[in-house]
Amino acid sequence: MKRAVFQSGFPEYLPSQRVVELGVLDSLRRTFELHGFASVETSSAEALERLLQKGETDKEVYVLRRLQADAADEPGTEPGRDRSGLGLHFDLTVPLARYVVDNAGQLEFPFRRYQIQKCWRGERPQEGRYREFTQADIDVVGKDTLSFEADVEIAAVMAEALSALPVPPLRLQVNNRRLMEGFFLGVGAPDTAAAMRAVDRLDKVDPGEVRRALVDEAGLAAAAADRCLALAAIATTDMSFVEAVQDLGVEHPLLDQGLAELVSVVQAAHEVATERVQVVADLRIARGLDYYTGTVFETRMLGWERIGSVCSGGRYDSLATDGRTTYPGVGISLGVTRLLAPLLTAGRLDGSRSVPSAVLVALPDEASRRSCRTVAQQLRHRGVPTEVAPEPTKYGRQIRHAERRGIPYVWFPQEDGSHEVRDIRSGEQHRADPATWSPPDVDLSPTIVHEEPTA
Amino acid sequence: MKRAVFQSGFPEYLPSQRVVELGVLDSLRRTFELHGFASVETSSAEALERLLQKGETDKEVYVLRRLQADAADEPGTEPGRDRSGLGLHFDLTVPLARYVVDNAGQLEFPFRRYQIQKCWRGERPQEGRYREFTQADIDVVGKDTLSFEADVEIAAVMAEALSALPVPPLRLQVNNRRLMEGFFLGVGAPDTAAAMRAVDRLDKVDPGEVRRALVDEAGLAAAAADRCLALAAIATTDMSFVEAVQDLGVEHPLLDQGLAELVSVVQAAHEVATERVQVVADLRIARGLDYYTGTVFETRMLGWERIGSVCSGGRYDSLATDGRTTYPGVGISLGVTRLLAPLLTAGRLDGSRSVPSAVLVALPDEASRRSCRTVAQQLRHRGVPTEVAPEPTKYGRQIRHAERRGIPYVWFPQEDGSHEVRDIRSGEQHRADPATWSPPDVDLSPTIVHEEPTA
Repeated sequence: MKRAVFQSGFPEYLPSQRVVELGVLDSLRRTFELHGFASVETSSAEALERLLQKGETDKEVYVLRRLQADAADEPGTEPGRDRSGLGLHFDLTVPLARYVVDNAGQLEFPFRRYQIQKCWRGERPQEGRYREFTQADIDVVGKDTLSFEADVEIAAVMAEALSALPVPPLRLQVNNRRLMEGFFLGVGAPDTAAAMRAVDRLDKVDPGEVRRALVDEAGLAAAAADRCLALAAIATTDMSFVEAVQDLGVEHPLLDQGLAELVSVVQAAHEVATERVQVVADLRIARGLDYYTGTVFETRMLGWERIGSVCSGGRYDSLATDGRTTYPGVGISLGVTRLLAPLLTAGRLDGSRSVPSAVLVALPDEASRRSCRTVAQQLRHRGVPTEVAPEPTKYGRQIRHAERRGIPYVWFPQEDGSHEVRDIRSGEQHRADPATWSPPDVDLSPTIVHEEPTA
Repeated sequence: MKRAVFQSGFPEYLPSQRVVELGVLDSLRRTFELHGFASVETSSAEALERLLQKGETDKEVYVLRRLQADAADEPGTEPGRDRSGLGLHFDLTVPLARYVVDNAGQLEFPFRRYQIQKCWRGERPQEGRYREFTQADIDVVGKDTLSFEADVEIAAVMAEALSALPVPPLRLQVNNRRLMEGFFLGVGAPDTAAAMRAVDRLDKVDPGEVRRALVDEAGLAAAAADRCLALAAIATTDMSFVEAVQDLGVEHPLLDQGLAELVSVVQAAHEVATERVQVVADLRIARGLDYYTGTVFETRMLGWERIGSVCSGGRYDSLATDGRTTYPGVGISLGVTRLLAPLLTAGRLDGSRSVPSAVLVALPDEASRRSCRTVAQQLRHRGVPTEVAPEPTKYGRQIRHAERRGIPYVWFPQEDGSHEVRDIRSGEQHRADPATWSPPDVDLSPTIVHEEPTA
């Protein structure tokens, strides 16, 4: 089995594995662009002070330092900039916030962008966690206001994008923090933030401990704590969560608003998701201490729950502000490396070949190289990826050269000036004209191959 | 005019400028893959000791340090790895050499790969030089041996790739170091390396100074130095350089071999280059102190010579070695950011619109949002990038929303259930069926717009 090289959390793929990653990135881009999201890339480096604004991530930032930056009197450098410090971005949300403020005068709002880039975190490498990894984000950012409908759109676009990926089934879990907050208020919670924190720990500790925290830390009565646990236990793949919430008999305007929002988001995601993406209203999802204020998302890969959420996000009422203007937003971030690296490492996915070439033009002798090049160029003009054999060795060796790369067709120029092409999988060989022949569409580009797990 | 944000050498583009970059990257990838080059990405980080193997680049390396790496007793880190040190790669050749040795057992040789990735150098930012920049490399790497025909292929593929780019005319300059070395030997040079160094300075100092160096440092007789200068003055867009070299009356087997190689490379590049890429045999090109041993390439953008070579490379007899095996290679590296950032900054190139959307579906009222979404989805299913207006404002405002983004078509659902679509550039509006209507191909995706310089 092929092996990917993973040195200290910096994954690298073999060429056939890269076919899988490229295919996934192309698919994501296609979906995002069909929905009108614009591509943006931001600098890999951000001011350290910006990266460290949220204290919880400070251990994970990679600091950049020019090797000679400390040398005194170094001409032609900008020591001030270097001393103030740059670090590599650890997500694509912090850079988006800065980009929006920097370019606000030249962007149109609501600003809908996708961003597919590498990020870096210096954390301990493990399955699903890497020091260098690719994220694919979509966000809609408003100026002063942003319609709730943007939440619905983000959910639908990502559900559609996920449905097109060649990965095990996914579970897109949606919740709404307004719903939770309204519920906490409705049962008389004196400190809704403490209640949120308690519920957020449900995937780490047992419900008894969460119940104690709801009582001891969030100041809830025992009966109220039980109703919060009952709320958090609701997870439905259909719209029955609405009735389940209503059956708990708690009333609050914020709860009604949150419930209505959750209905809209879940419905829209249901409409576009295929059976490969299960959309669940999961009322336990809180997204921890993050800055989310309404809709929240998490995503599990079935059978791979141990790697955590592969696609998360939500609504934030203030993505950024420049003092005068506030930019609310909603977004979701897919961990491409977190999703793919474990599957590639386990041999569950691979490319059908290690090169783009659909055809190898065999080289009868060195004198024929020029005419073989012409044949190759004729095929390429019709979009057929083609290479010419590197050396005029025996045909058997040239065919094995193609075989080892997974190239399906070998082209043989004949002495009489005619041509034949062989499908080296079937051995079938027939006459062909380089000006008109094309392989079947399925053979034109490398495809993604699924390997079943060996139980 | 639109402005790109360039902070301290880390370029960022506006969405319509990113359309240009994406178009260029797509075009490069298409050409490389049509020729059967496989995509590879390597880790952004390399061991510092590897990056510093060539002393001349040590000032330019960005060192990576985890913010908390120095803290003692930090659990779950790898201090050994961190102390040995990582830096960001400054090109894609050093990482390729490491990747080839790391994965030699799983790669097929000759290994033909393309690699499009960001690189970093801590040098002083200026026009054409950035601290973060994208390179697009193609290389062919052999195991123990590599046919000279790989040089020919690399030249032809890059000439074809350059010909497809939406940039000012380019001049691809080709030379051969064997030719130069043979010539130096033929005129009796005692130290060919010193002669090479002297000639390499021709673009920095005047010929008189080079002549002095050839005599004083390389130990040539005055007449021999003059012949070397005469050789370096040869630059032809046709094959007449062969006669011009022969007319100098110098003889050496290495000169003959180098000249024959140069003929092959230049001919192959001529055959694929369009009039937008001038292929020149330029016998002054030496590529300095680099490790090149045969073919060498440089490329100038006409009218932008001040930014230096935008695409360089050549043949190296030993890209890498693991002690037992040597990996010769030939490659060429296109500076995508060096090429595009100056053109974008000068407003010479821009995208035709700032979003992928070809159609904005107007929203008559909030109640129609669902049916508008359905229309949009019908268009997307046929590959038409479409967005729905964010708010049911007055139609005039929705049309301006499309206009400001450069979206060419606005779709109007009618009260009777029929539909109309308006080309907002011409104002022409007609009935259309969301199940069958498509815009003309030219409007489907954003295109690249050339602006003439204002003299």
